[in-house]
This record gives sequence, structure tokens and C-alpha cells, in this order.
Amino acid sequence: GDVSGEHAEPNDRKLLYEEWASYSVFYKYQPIGLVRKYFGEKIGLYFAWLGLYTQMLIPASVVGVIVFLYGCATVDDNIPSMEICHPNNNITMCPLCDKVCSYWKLKETCATARASYLFDNPATVFFSIFMALWAAMFMEHWKRRQMRLNYEWDLTGFEEEEDHPRAEYELHVMHKSSKKDRRSQKKADDEKLTCRDRLPAYMTNLVMMLLMIGVTFAIVFGVILYRISTKAALHLSSNPSHVLLTVKITATIINLVVILILDEVYGAVARWLTVLEVPKTDKSFEQRLIFKTFILKFVNAFTPIIYIAFFRGRLVGRPGNYLYVFESYRMEECAHGGCLMELCIQLSITMLGKQLIQNNLFEIGVPKIKKLIRYIKSKRQAFQEEEREKRLQRYEIDHFLEPFAGLTPEYMEMIIQFGFVTLFVASFPLAPLFALLNNIIEIRLDAKKFVGELQRPVAARAKDIGIWYNLLKGVAKVAVIINAFVISFTSDFIPRLVYQYMYSHDGSMHGFVNHTLSYFNVSNFEDGKQPLHLSYVDICRYKDYREPPWSSMPYEISKEFWAVLAARLAFVIVFQNVVMLMSDVVDWLIPDIPKDISMQIHKEKILMVELFMREEQGKMHMMESMASAGDKEKCSGNSHPVPLPRQRTTPQPHCNKANNI
Amino acid sequence: GDVSGEHAEPNDRKLLYEEWASYSVFYKYQPIGLVRKYFGEKIGLYFAWLGLYTQMLIPASVVGVIVFLYGCATVDDNIPSMEICHPNNNITMCPLCDKVCSYWKLKETCATARASYLFDNPATVFFSIFMALWAAMFMEHWKRRQMRLNYEWDLTGFEEEEDHPRAEYELHVMHKSSKKDRRSQKKADDEKLTCRDRLPAYMTNLVMMLLMIGVTFAIVFGVILYRISTKAALHLSSNPSHVLLTVKITATIINLVVILILDEVYGAVARWLTVLEVPKTDKSFEQRLIFKTFILKFVNAFTPIIYIAFFRGRLVGRPGNYLYVFESYRMEECAHGGCLMELCIQLSITMLGKQLIQNNLFEIGVPKIKKLIRYIKSKRQAFQEEEREKRLQRYEIDHFLEPFAGLTPEYMEMIIQFGFVTLFVASFPLAPLFALLNNIIEIRLDAKKFVGELQRPVAARAKDIGIWYNLLKGVAKVAVIINAFVISFTSDFIPRLVYQYMYSHDGSMHGFVNHTLSYFNVSNFEDGKQPLHLSYVDICRYKDYREPPWSSMPYEISKEFWAVLAARLAFVIVFQNVVMLMSDVVDWLIPDIPKDISMQIHKEKILMVELFMREEQGKMHMMESMASAGDKEKCSGNSHPVPLPRQRTTPQPHCNKANNI
Repeated sequence: GDVSGEHAEPNDRKLLYEEWASYSVFYKYQPIGLVRKYFGEKIGLYFAWLGLYTQMLIPASVVGVIVFLYGCATVDDNIPSMEICHPNNNITMCPLCDKVCSYWKLKETCATARASYLFDNPATVFFSIFMALWAAMFMEHWKRRQMRLNYEWDLTGFEEEEDHPRAEYELHVMHKSSKKDRRSQKKADDEKLTCRDRLPAYMTNLVMMLLMIGVTFAIVFGVILYRISTKAALHLSSNPSHVLLTVKITATIINLVVILILDEVYGAVARWLTVLEVPKTDKSFEQRLIFKTFILKFVNAFTPIIYIAFFRGRLVGRPGNYLYVFESYRMEECAHGGCLMELCIQLSITMLGKQLIQNNLFEIGVPKIKKLIRYIKSKRQAFQEEEREKRLQRYEIDHFLEPFAGLTPEYMEMIIQFGFVTLFVASFPLAPLFALLNNIIEIRLDAKKFVGELQRPVAARAKDIGIWYNLLKGVAKVAVIINAFVISFTSDFIPRLVYQYMYSHDGSMHGFVNHTLSYFNVSNFEDGKQPLHLSYVDICRYKDYREPPWSSMPYEISKEFWAVLAARLAFVIVFQNVVMLMSDVVDWLIPDIPKDISMQIHKEKILMVELFMREEQGKMHMMESMASAGDKEKCSGNSHPVPLPRQRTTPQPHCNKANNI
Repeated sequence: GDVSGEHAEPNDRKLLYEEWASYSVFYKYQPIGLVRKYFGEKIGLYFAWLGLYTQMLIPASVVGVIVFLYGCATVDDNIPSMEICHPNNNITMCPLCDKVCSYWKLKETCATARASYLFDNPATVFFSIFMALWAAMFMEHWKRRQMRLNYEWDLTGFEEEEDHPRAEYELHVMHKSSKKDRRSQKKADDEKLTCRDRLPAYMTNLVMMLLMIGVTFAIVFGVILYRISTKAALHLSSNPSHVLLTVKITATIINLVVILILDEVYGAVARWLTVLEVPKTDKSFEQRLIFKTFILKFVNAFTPIIYIAFFRGRLVGRPGNYLYVFESYRMEECAHGGCLMELCIQLSITMLGKQLIQNNLFEIGVPKIKKLIRYIKSKRQAFQEEEREKRLQRYEIDHFLEPFAGLTPEYMEMIIQFGFVTLFVASFPLAPLFALLNNIIEIRLDAKKFVGELQRPVAARAKDIGIWYNLLKGVAKVAVIINAFVISFTSDFIPRLVYQYMYSHDGSMHGFVNHTLSYFNVSNFEDGKQPLHLSYVDICRYKDYREPPWSSMPYEISKEFWAVLAARLAFVIVFQNVVMLMSDVVDWLIPDIPKDISMQIHKEKILMVELFMREEQGKMHMMESMASAGDKEKCSGNSHPVPLPRQRTTPQPHCNKANNI
């Protein structure tokens, strides 16, 4: 009852603090029942979801680490990188820019080539199929877990009540109808906002969303410009190789900082846009807000990564005819061995940075600072009461805590992380491990925050995690196609296969590096484009599939290019359809409702009907016997109005029995 | 109640016969309520589904006819077929087989090229996107209609009861446990069939299914052999062009007949295999049977079509180096203008043939014959009772009717038709029209059958159409990818686009025909492969993308081939993903439950709770007042046991009121 609940409350909080909000219990299951009791179903479901997600990350991390270790173990058997690193390798590469750059030896990229192999080996193909099935499995398991919790928390019959219109909505409707009244002099019947009323808001939304996405693109482009301009400047300096790494890392950090700042800006913009829309109910408001925030934050987090994965190094021209952005800034190229290595660096820095800075620093630091400020403020106002302060009650201290601001930021953070884990997993098999480590801390961090840093939220009921499930499902779907493209376009998996089965003489990878390099005749440099540094080179090489200088159409795109492109595209089609089919099979094999729960629900329904029938029967008998008692004027002095159910099992119409309680 | 129902029954049947089972009302909606009343919910749902499907076919047919008419109207503006038919066109084509075939003029294919354009123009791309969205829309509309019917037929709270195990299953379990008892001398607890018990049956299933599919493939291959051997023989005859058409049509008819026969065989095999599996419940039996039958019939119906669409004319070799199946039988080639024309012929004959022969002849004819046989048999047995026969009662006459054999054949027929309408719609835009015409007849035919030719089935309840919905959804999904492949690989859409944007000098289609034909130098014929008919030809042409004789690698696959292949594959990826996205948007935009129904259900739930509360309150008051009456020993002589509900609305604890009935 109520009284015992109030009495037990401090104990619940203490129990949660000890058994849940502590790093020392990180290996244990969360006490979800207690969380639900103290915070309500909605927050309970969030932590249950987070728990299942973290749990599911364990097998993914294990497989990811194995895939990575497989790469490490076989790196010395990798023929292409062996060929690049071989001491006899004497291939001269063309200068990477006009005039100021000079020729260089392919051998220089030995380290990069070896490192690339760690993330670009046949095991990663297997791993991205595995992760697509893992995502499907996770969604299915969550459906089952949710169903089980619904049953345990007695929510199976619960239906969300219709929300009442928000005050802002009512205000707008009032304004509209009063305006109408003035004009048409008669009462308007349809007092609601139509699409036409909302059209300006919708247009503003659309324009602003596109503008925000445009801003993201512009900033990413700005960072690219920074990178290529510094690179161009560095080519003039003496020792570029070390500074090059600095440029890469600073550019990535700039990207990260921009992402972090824009994330905050976009959150505010999305809220403002949703207010403009005047949604009818609170639920609709929340959904629209989440949807907009999700799109903006997703674009923000993944634009630089998508640029590196699919656009960088694609349109670079060829030696002697390089493509320039402005006058002297060349389009970026990837190091030998594909862009996969750079994608990997970008991914790990963004992911780790976001997790460490945004999630942990912001989530823990900012509330603490806010609390301190509030505390100091209130202290100033009442500094004379310093004495009494020492004897502050618990609820008085808790008054200084930050109010609860909803679960949206928590879910959003996790869904972006889910994106990192699934979207580009083909290029970064360690992502699940990083996510797992983060989440083990995250659960306890969130727990600490909810127990100790935030005011206790008003408990809310919920049957499911709502729109988040759909967003997760959407991310999982997009992940399949993005992984297909990463494997076939970003990695060298397909060119290797094509070489092995179409061009290789002995079916091995020997000669692959030579095959991917085209020839350039130095005498074909236009005036003013030759390297300034003099050297005795006739033919240099560059990474592309183009006709050699001695063919009838020199430097045209070659047949190999089209064959490889066709193979890449065919792989995308096969990969996407096979993985989608397998996901559907997983979806179909795992029933949505656990067998025991569905049987239990069925049994309970039958029992309910039975009980109801018996109760009705009992009441009937009771009344009959009472009526007959009234007839006989015998059984008086007993006025128990509701008979106990237990005695209805053998109902007998005799007055003396029925009243013999 | 029952009595009035029995009384009204003959009228219901008569009404159904007049208002439903008649061709004269084909333009009207079906009286679904009455169908449900007379036949039960399960059959009611089938006819409701068939009705919605037919209704949805109307817009599809209209758009299909418009697309076809667009093709007819623009056929004279089509530059490639104009170029082929131009009197100045003097292109000499290479012989289509070694030795016996002679050179021929491209001009001869003028008619085929023009006919192909009718089914291979830009509008068909639009149409197949339209049909994919149409399928998504149809599924959504059916969900809504089903929900509405559920509400109207009071099935919202209905749950299918757990089936009892089938007798065969129980028998197997008994055998198993008795065997176990004998061996282990103790009672087995787990009296059910495990996967291990079923393993032999599963293996038989797998093997038999593969065997059946193999038989289908073998027969299709046989028909191909028939076609190419007759063709080879015809090349020796004088006037091949007319006989060629005969071969095509006879081969298609053989295919059709084989499909019809195998369909019957496969139905029996699927049933036998399902019996072997010993499914636990009737529902499971039905589902497994349907699934197997569906796969076999689908493979049976679509294998020849898939062969023509994707395999025919792909691996044919080149002049002088043709590929042969056996010694002298060349692989089939498609006529100029792609295989789309032949695909279209095959599709229309199979579809029309199946509909006319299988559905209408078999469905109407066979039951009538069976009825006649039964009638004659019973007449023989009781020919002395000839007199009484004239005064036979209705139910006695109905005794000779065919018993009801389930809805599976009806649904199966329709889902195969749905396959014809969606799977290859890119090549045959008139399919929806044919389906619509068939279905308008089919509804009334089925109605006549149910009312007049079959014994009245036992009414069964059902909330939905069960596994059929999933199969429909599966067909709609497969349709997207198959249409993508038909457009990009079977039609000439992509080569035309590639030519226009990559090779054409003025951006027009002029020169496209010339571009798709490769050159062959007659002197490269090996000995014994030259045509026997002498002629003065130096260079002949053939349809392929290969290097010309004067290149460094004569007759190798050319760069254009790979470029076109890459474009084809890219189109498949774009088409599939765009259409899937659009289908998802349609799915998301149309709510599953109609707004008015969900509001009504919500309202009713509230009313129910209210009513229940009031009823309980009333009873309580009643009992209280009775008890107090017993106390006062006042109200006697009135023993009405069950108070009427109406009087509970204003419950009063006064004894005189409560008993004043």
C-alpha cells in the first residue's frame, strides 16, 4: 500500500545507490525491477534496453577482436604489402602535385600498407555480415525482452491514453477561431489547425533543416580545405612526413570539436522548429523533436566519415592533369592501400572523442557545475542562515539537484553509438569493443546521475521504447547498404578478387600491386607542371586503372576500371540481398513473444474468465439465497454484503449454508 | 437466435445466389456481410480480400493500358527501330549457326524491333516503380480493410484457440514412448516429437523438394532442347521465318501443359511430404502444406520465364566460336531488340493459359463432372427408387455436391496471379488488365461454386488471412529486385542511356544500332564453319560488345561491355533501394488501423469499463438493500432472483424500491 511505499522509499534509493549506481557491480545484471519501482516504467525500459544492448555487445566485441587479431596474425602473409615492403621494390611513383612535389618511392608507404591490411582483409567481410545479423538478432531479442517486461510489470493490457492537446496548440486554435469569427461573423466548427495553417511552419522547418545540413556540409568542406591547403604548404617544407600526420590529426580534432558544438546548436534549433510546428499533443511534440534531432545529429556525426569513405580520392585526375579545387589546391588523395586506414582513424577519434567528451564530461561535469551554481546562488540569498544549513533535510539538499530533462539525450547518444557500431563496422572491427567499454561505464554513470545528480523524475508508464525502436531499425537497414559499399568501394577487397580470378597468371596475389598502378610518361607533363626537383625518371606510376602512354588512347580509363567497377557493383547487390534475406530469416525464426510468456498470458486469460464466471454465479446464488431468506424470514442478523470468493466454489442455494460465514 | 437463423437460411442462400453469384452484378460490391453470415468469417475474409485485390487492379490496369498506348503512339518516333527499318539500312548480319546458316540482313528484324519497343520504352520503367508502390499500397489497404472487418464482425477480442494435436501426431508420440518404455523400462516424461525424431522426415522433405525443383528445371531444359533442335533442323529447310513462330508457340504451349500437369503432381507431393513430417496441430499442418505447395508451384510457373528473362542469349559465344549444348545444338539467341518480346509472349500465354484452363475449366468443369459421377453412382445403387427421386428435398439434392476442400487452391491461384502482375510487370504492362478481367469473372465463378456446386462448408472463424499475407509480402519484395533486373538486363534501357550520355556525338539515339553491333571478319571463320551458301561478304555484324577484328585483341570483350554492365548493375542498386525506400514511406504514411475504427474501439473500451463499474455498483447496492431488508424483516413475498439491469442505473438502498419490480 501507500504507507509502506513511503516508508520504504529512502531504502529503495539507498539500495539503488549501492546495488546499481556503483562501478563495483559493473559485471552484474541491473536490478531492473527496483529501477522500475523507483523511477517508473519508462526509465526502467531505458535501462533494460541499455542493459540488453550492452550484453549483446559482448559477443560482437569478441568476434571483432578475433577479426582484428586475425588481421594482425596474417599481416606478414599478405602478398601485396610484402611486395610493397620488399627491398627490391623499386617502383617510382609520380609526384602528388604539380611543380612543387617530387617523385617518390612506393616503398615509403610500406607501414601504411601493412596497417591497412589490419582493417582490410577477408575477415572483415565476414564480420560485416555477422554484424548485420547481430543487429537483426538484437532487435528481435529486444522485442522479446520488452514483451517479458510488459508481462512482469503488468502492462499487457495497458494502453496509452490519448494525450490532451498542449496549451500552445489550444492557444493557436483560439487565435485562429477568433480571427475567423471576426471575419466571417459566425462560429467556426472545425476548431483545429489544418495543414494549411501549418504550411508556413512546415516550410520553415524544411528550409531550416536543409540549411542546417548545408552548414554541416560547408564545415566539412572547410576542414577539407584546411587539410589540403596545409598539405600544399607543407610540400614546400623540408620534412613533410611527420607534419602530415599532425595535419591529419588536427583536422580530425577540428572535425570532432565542430561536431560537438554543432550537436548542441542543432538540439536547440530542432526544439525551436518543433515549437513552430505547434504539434497537438505532447507525444507528437516529442516524436517530431526526436526525429528532427536525430536527422541533424546523424548527418553531423557521419558526414565527414561518409566523405572519407566514398568521395575522397575518387575524383583526383591523373598526373599532369590533376583536378584542383581552387587555383592550387589539389583534391585529396588516399594513401596507398585505400582510404580505409584514414576512415578507421576518423572513426576511432570521432567515436572515442564523442564518448569521452560529450557523454562523460558533459553528462557528469555540466550537472555538477550547475548544481554548484544553484547552491552558491541560494547560499548568497540566505547566507545568514548558514547555521541551519548544516541540519538540512535530505529533501532540502535534493532541491539543489538538476531537474530531470527527459530520456531523449540518453537514447540519442546510444543510437548514434549504435550507428558507429553498425554503419562502418566493415572498416573498424574494434567499434563494438569501444562501445562495450563505454557502455559498461555509461550504465553506472547514468545510474549515478539518476540516483544522485537529478531530481527524482515523475514516474511515467510506457509499453515500449516508442520511436527509438523504429530509428534503430532504420539504422540497421541503412547499415547493410553502407557496409556493402564500404567493402566494395573503400576497401581493396574486390580489386584483389578480380585480379586473382581474371588477371593473375598463377591464381595468387603476386603482381597485384603492379596491376593497380598505371604508367605515366614523364615527357607528357605540360610545361610548368614538371617537378622542380630534377631527377632521371622516364616513367612514373600512379594508382588508377588507366591506359598506358603507349596505347592508342593514352591515359583514358581502361577496361580494367570498368570490369572492377562492375564487380564492385555486383558485390553490393549480392551482399545487400543476401544479408537482407538472412536478417528476414532471423526475424522469422525468433518469435516476438517468448513461448512461456504467451502460454502464461493465455492461461491467465482462461483463469480470468473462469473466475469472473464463478464470481457472477456466486453473487447470483447469494442474492437468490437472500431472497429466499427474505421469503422464509429466517436468516436475520447477518448482513455481510460481499461474500468471500473462497466459499463460492461449492455454491449451495440453502440459506443456512450461504450465511454461515 | 438459432431458430430465426434456421428459418432465414434458405433465403440467405437464395439472396446470395441472386445478389452475389451472378455475372450480372459484376460491377457491384460483394455482399460481404451476407457471405460471412452464411459461410463464416474465414471464407468471408477470402472474398473480401479478392474483392479488394480486384478493386486495386483497376488503377493498375488503367495505368498499364496508358503505358502500352504510349508505346504504340511513340513507336514511330523511336530512332533505333527507325534505323533498323530504314530502306537504306544495309547491315549484313553474321550467320546464326555454323555451316548451315547463311548471312542475313538486319532489316529483316524490323517488325520485331518495332514490336519490342511497345514493351521496352522509358514508360515501362515508370510503370514498374508504380507497380511496386501499388503492391505496397495494396498490402496497407488490406491491413486496414481487415481491421475494419474485424471490428464490424466483432473479432477484435477474438483469439485463435490452441489447436489440439492431430491424431497422427498422437499416434507417433505413442509409438515413440512405447518403444522407449520397452528399451529403458521407465516412463518417458517428454512425450513429444523432437527435432531428432523428425530428422528423417525433414531430410526426405529437403531431398524431395530439391528433386521436384530439379524435375522442373529438367523439363524446362527439355523444352529448350526441343526448341533449339527444331530450329537447327529448320535452318536446313527453305522457309524458316514462318515455321520459327510455330516452334516458339508450340514450345510455349508445351511449357504451359507441363506446368498444368506438374501443378497437380506437386500438390499431391506436397501433401504427402507434409504427412511425413507429422506436424503437431492442424494449423501447423496447413501452414507447412501451403508453404511447400507455394514454393513448388511458384518455381513451376516462373522457371521458364526466368530462363527467358535472364539466361537466354547470354552465353552464346560469337560467330565462328559459338557455344554448343551438345554437338550441334547452339545456345538460343534472342531476336534483335532483346529478349523482352519473347518474355512478353511467354508471359501472356502462360498467364492467359493458366487462367483460362486451370482456373476456369478445371474449377468449373471438374466439380460438375464429379457431381455427375456421384449422381450416376447413387442412381445405380437405388435405381428402384426412381419415383421418389422426383420429390427429392433440397438437402437431398445437395448431398450430391462436391465437399468443400478448403480455401488453399483459391488463394494459391490468386497469389500466383499476383506474381504475374508484379514480378515481370516491367516487360508486360498489360498483365494487370488481364488479371482484372480474369478476377471479375473469378469472383462470380467462385461465388457460384460456393453457393451452387459445393456442399456448404462448416463456418470457421479467422481474424486474418494468415500465412497468405506473408507470402504476398514476400512476392512483393522479390518483385522489386526482379523488376530491377528485367529493366536493366532484359530490356535495352541501360545500353540506350549509356550510348546517349557516353558515346553519342549529338546526344541523340542516332547510331545506337550500329554501336551495339560488333564486327566480324569472314576470313576468321575456321574451316568447316563458313556458311555453305556462297556470298560476297567481307565483314558481318553480330550483337555483342566485342573488339573489332582490327584491334590488338580481336573478338575479346570490349570496354563498352564492362561500362554497360557497370551501368546496369548501378541501376539495379539505385532502383531497388529507391523503390524499397518509397514502399517503406507508403507503409509508414498509411496507418494500419483506420482512424475511425481505432477511435470507436477506444470509446467502446471506456464505455465497457463504465458499464461494468455501474453494474458492480448496482449489484452491491442490491445486496446491501436485501441484507438490510432481511434485517428489518419487512420485504417478503418477492423472490425475483435476477434484477433487471435497467433498474440499476439509480440504485437506492431502500428495500421497497429495490423489490418493486
